[in-house]
Amino acid sequence: MKAASDKAGGQQAQRLAEEAAQTLYQRDRASQALGMRLTAVRPGWARVVMAVRADMLNGHDLCHGGIVFALADSAFAFACNSYNESTVAAAGSIDFLSAARLGDELTAEACELWRTRRNGIYEITVTSQRGERIALLRGRSYRIEGQVTTPRE
Amino acid sequence: MKAASDKAGGQQAQRLAEEAAQTLYQRDRASQALGMRLTAVRPGWARVVMAVRADMLNGHDLCHGGIVFALADSAFAFACNSYNESTVAAAGSIDFLSAARLGDELTAEACELWRTRRNGIYEITVTSQRGERIALLRGRSYRIEGQVTTPRE
Amino acid sequence: MKAASDKAGGQQAQRLAEEAAQTLYQRDRASQALGMRLTAVRPGWARVVMAVRADMLNGHDLCHGGIVFALADSAFAFACNSYNESTVAAAGSIDFLSAARLGDELTAEACELWRTRRNGIYEITVTSQRGERIALLRGRSYRIEGQVTTPRE
Amino acid sequence: MKAASDKAGGQQAQRLAEEAAQTLYQRDRASQALGMRLTAVRPGWARVVMAVRADMLNGHDLCHGGIVFALADSAFAFACNSYNESTVAAAGSIDFLSAARLGDELTAEACELWRTRRNGIYEITVTSQRGERIALLRGRSYRIEGQVTTPRE
Repeated sequence: MKAASDKAGGQQAQRLAEEAAQTLYQRDRASQALGMRLTAVRPGWARVVMAVRADMLNGHDLCHGGIVFALADSAFAFACNSYNESTVAAAGSIDFLSAARLGDELTAEACELWRTRRNGIYEITVTSQRGERIALLRGRSYRIEGQVTTPRE
Repeated sequence: MKAASDKAGGQQAQRLAEEAAQTLYQRDRASQALGMRLTAVRPGWARVVMAVRADMLNGHDLCHGGIVFALADSAFAFACNSYNESTVAAAGSIDFLSAARLGDELTAEACELWRTRRNGIYEITVTSQRGERIALLRGRSYRIEGQVTTPRE
Repeated sequence: MKAASDKAGGQQAQRLAEEAAQTLYQRDRASQALGMRLTAVRPGWARVVMAVRADMLNGHDLCHGGIVFALADSAFAFACNSYNESTVAAAGSIDFLSAARLGDELTAEACELWRTRRNGIYEITVTSQRGERIALLRGRSYRIEGQVTTPRE
Repeated sequence: MKAASDKAGGQQAQRLAEEAAQTLYQRDRASQALGMRLTAVRPGWARVVMAVRADMLNGHDLCHGGIVFALADSAFAFACNSYNESTVAAAGSIDFLSAARLGDELTAEACELWRTRRNGIYEITVTSQRGERIALLRGRSYRIEGQVTTPRE
């Protein structure tokens, strides 16, 4: 019976992660305005996709570092809110590895490295459609009051 | 005569910083699309202002961390390109201190801490109109090939 | 009367900072073993000095980065425990600017940038006797249970 | 014949990694003084072990954060010098996850995430004998002039 209850627990955790992420995404006007799409979420993990548009380029004609950070930060947010406990970024450390250019399709995957009741550490990797690594973000999350969504019965 | 030539050198450096920053800003569609205004620049230093719009809010109804980072990163870019040598961000480490909200007027000031021929370290502080510190970014810059602008004679 | 009571409060805060730092230093076998000397402390601020010994050199004959970090981290600890509330480092981001060598006398100054009830951000600068900047550390502190010392009446 | 020559290349790279790491370790008085042992090295990867001694404790009776950083930094050094090109740390960002205590046996594993001719990014994980994660370091390396060792014919 244990395996069955583990499986049920896993399905419930997955359902909660999806509900929390969908709710958060629907309220997240910044991610929507930047054309980000949430393509997958699991407890402690999320993937977000974004195409580099002309209005995302900086003065060197490369994707603005802040926009790359924003993509990584959104994936981070969906991952760290996947337990339905309201959580925000406290800090982040990003390394820019390669430049992204107009038309590039970027994918950010956020993965949980560590979590306590209040704090968490996530690793977010941004890659291009060529498989090139664009940036690595290490983020520290901090749980605030409240829940993301009222789970359905 | 030394003081006079120092003063002339300082004026030339200031003119170059302004030309480089203006040129970079005019090409920087991301900073423009986010409503950023470059309000002051000096060699190794820059100030950029931005109001938090509805399309900059995340799912917790706070200014998206990526947008705060983008503001800091633009100030960083104007400061580290102020010598007219094309320079990009290699890495950045941000601490989010307080949340910014709809309608807040944010100011980012970037200040050079250290610079060699190829690398630099900048400190960028983002504050609100209330004088509250919103975020601190420590950025590492890396000089690439080329100049930002061809200086006027 | 306000100025007098402010002054008394300031003196008390200074006395508490000195007591907490002295107590912490006397228990801190690592800082002692590395020959560090606590030369000054104020609320939210501390200065620690250390000479680079032969047993601190790495395989490139330069002061080991971990030892430079340790010096900065000790100054950070004295600064963030100066309110007599037990506080530890949660994270740190260091930039190594110049190498330190055998016989160099290094000074680390830690300065508080921001503090809430539970979290703080400190900036620590390590310089050599030549005035050269060796490293910059940005540290995030986290308050734990307890006090450093039982203040004298 | 390709597989055979790949295998020969792999063996040569492994031999070079071992020679460079051994040479570096023998010169590295700081790592030796802290009782670190280099237990394994491969191209772009290294493992270093250290026991927490009484002279490594800070004023809270926990392993000093600088000593934890030093362990991680040594593993980082052996990994990033494993191609026999002299390389130093330019920056590092550490998160302290759990405290280490007297007698703990700590293991640091350094793993290369990205490398160009001049720069590299490494992830270093420090764990205790209980399997608990103690710290995560993200390090940025910078290649300087010279080689670690003159390879044997």
